[in-house]
Amino acid sequence: MRQAILELLKKHQEIFISGEEISKRFGISRTAVWKHINRLKEEGYDIESVTKLGYKLKEIPDTLLPEEIKSRLKTKVIGQEIHYFPEIVSTNSYCKTLGDKGVSEGAAVIAESQQNGRGRFGRTWISPPQKGLYFSLLLRPKISPQEASRLIFLTAVTVACVLDTHFNLKAGIKWPNDLILNGKKFAGILLEMKAEAEQVDYLVLGVGINVNNKPEEFPGDLAKTATSLFIEKGLTLSRVELLTTILNTLEKAYFNYLNNGFGRVLELWKKYNITLGKRVTVTNWQTNWSGLAKDINPYGGLILVLPDGTEKTMYSGDVTLKV
Amino acid sequence: MRQAILELLKKHQEIFISGEEISKRFGISRTAVWKHINRLKEEGYDIESVTKLGYKLKEIPDTLLPEEIKSRLKTKVIGQEIHYFPEIVSTNSYCKTLGDKGVSEGAAVIAESQQNGRGRFGRTWISPPQKGLYFSLLLRPKISPQEASRLIFLTAVTVACVLDTHFNLKAGIKWPNDLILNGKKFAGILLEMKAEAEQVDYLVLGVGINVNNKPEEFPGDLAKTATSLFIEKGLTLSRVELLTTILNTLEKAYFNYLNNGFGRVLELWKKYNITLGKRVTVTNWQTNWSGLAKDINPYGGLILVLPDGTEKTMYSGDVTLKV
Repeated sequence: MRQAILELLKKHQEIFISGEEISKRFGISRTAVWKHINRLKEEGYDIESVTKLGYKLKEIPDTLLPEEIKSRLKTKVIGQEIHYFPEIVSTNSYCKTLGDKGVSEGAAVIAESQQNGRGRFGRTWISPPQKGLYFSLLLRPKISPQEASRLIFLTAVTVACVLDTHFNLKAGIKWPNDLILNGKKFAGILLEMKAEAEQVDYLVLGVGINVNNKPEEFPGDLAKTATSLFIEKGLTLSRVELLTTILNTLEKAYFNYLNNGFGRVLELWKKYNITLGKRVTVTNWQTNWSGLAKDINPYGGLILVLPDGTEKTMYSGDVTLKV
Repeated sequence: MRQAILELLKKHQEIFISGEEISKRFGISRTAVWKHINRLKEEGYDIESVTKLGYKLKEIPDTLLPEEIKSRLKTKVIGQEIHYFPEIVSTNSYCKTLGDKGVSEGAAVIAESQQNGRGRFGRTWISPPQKGLYFSLLLRPKISPQEASRLIFLTAVTVACVLDTHFNLKAGIKWPNDLILNGKKFAGILLEMKAEAEQVDYLVLGVGINVNNKPEEFPGDLAKTATSLFIEKGLTLSRVELLTTILNTLEKAYFNYLNNGFGRVLELWKKYNITLGKRVTVTNWQTNWSGLAKDINPYGGLILVLPDGTEKTMYSGDVTLKV
């Protein structure tokens, strides 16, 4: 009902609609109308109420309100349950507590900002309010921990495809899954899991994307290595549209992977990757391995050809591309 | 000090040693002696106290008291912290809470019985009081989740080696890690983990071994498929000795793996395995795969040759050996 009232107000934005009109149209009491409107206001919609005139929706801000997200989702699983926070410590940490509580697959934790957004290896992900997308998804695929990192590859590929197809931005993927534009990172993915040796209990797939950050909004020297879609495209993007397009595309890719295997993801990863064929150094547990990035294997491992001609498969590390 | 007093009583078992003697020997007060003795009694030692005669240690039961374990351990990490329970819901579940709390690597959770001992795929592990070994170890190796299942292989191999070398029992390992004597299972290993995609936060390595169970002590039809070391050897074994020998051997194998790689474990696994070279059916997520068990790969995956000649690598499942 609240959704229907919201749709009516959106359709006739900037025009007053009387409470009586809404009441009759939906067959609910005036008090019920008033309660729904108040709830929408609480959720962040800027609705003006004037006695005798009624209600008017003034502006739809680019906030990630669950109603805005849900009305654009075409998914059956991902995002069907949304936990939304104007501010949170970390979407991944909160999502893990949902996993521990047995919440169903597909639950999404979405925040406007994170106090302690995390990246790989316990690094910080700067998460200023309403500048980026910071969300985590709870998944329970029937796969082994060996296969779990495939979900990061799938997510990186999804983000790259969405930017390419819907926003005309050609991002590159640096192994394993840094998303790069013009040599700078604009998005990262953090996968955490609870598992037995042979089966995953749950995965938490965290995504951070710098969307509308301006260069001066990156602290310290970060702007030398980090960028945002706004910086690269010169346009402010709708975060709601970007998020929902990613979630819709991700669900298709997810079920396609579960039903048809990892082949298509690998193919797309290779299309967008900027690592293979290059001389690289991989830093892993404080050890450096230099060589030619030859290929990735079906588990996402990077196959390096070392200077002595032997091959080494890496499952973890930071890649530096040699110029 | 308590350990020293216990050693003295053990050395002169079945003889009364006066409080005065103990007090002088260790330079502590009579009250301190009395307090230490009371604490030992609380821990389960059967110490008789008679006025004017002193203290006599009557019997050392085959309970897994931390003092008994520690006095036999030659480890630097594993078992240096012991959490002992006469009864617990599940050693693995408790050990995971230690992992979540940030407890250091090597902590051991040891129980005389489990109310809800768990096996692979959420199955039950029957854990009657003082019949078997039920313990879980907290490990924090710097490895990726892809490599985590190697620790199960390492543990299965360790148990097989200990039984072979110290107890003259030739166990077989059925892929992935069921321990078998005369076609029946007597031990299982349950690995659980919390991890990021590229690094393990912690592993909980749970081990259940049927040691002194008699055939009639297995409920229902379980005796058809399950056995114990007592049944196979016809002797009651010291659980304290078995546990400490396993922990001592496991620590060596663990550091050898971390420092020198997985090669030695694979070699020993192949020595004890009863799966390779056989026609098998692997049941995995309700799908059956039949074929020839050709080899295992460096991550413990079972390489099956299917009837059409193609190869499939399995990371999860139950194996049925075809006769």
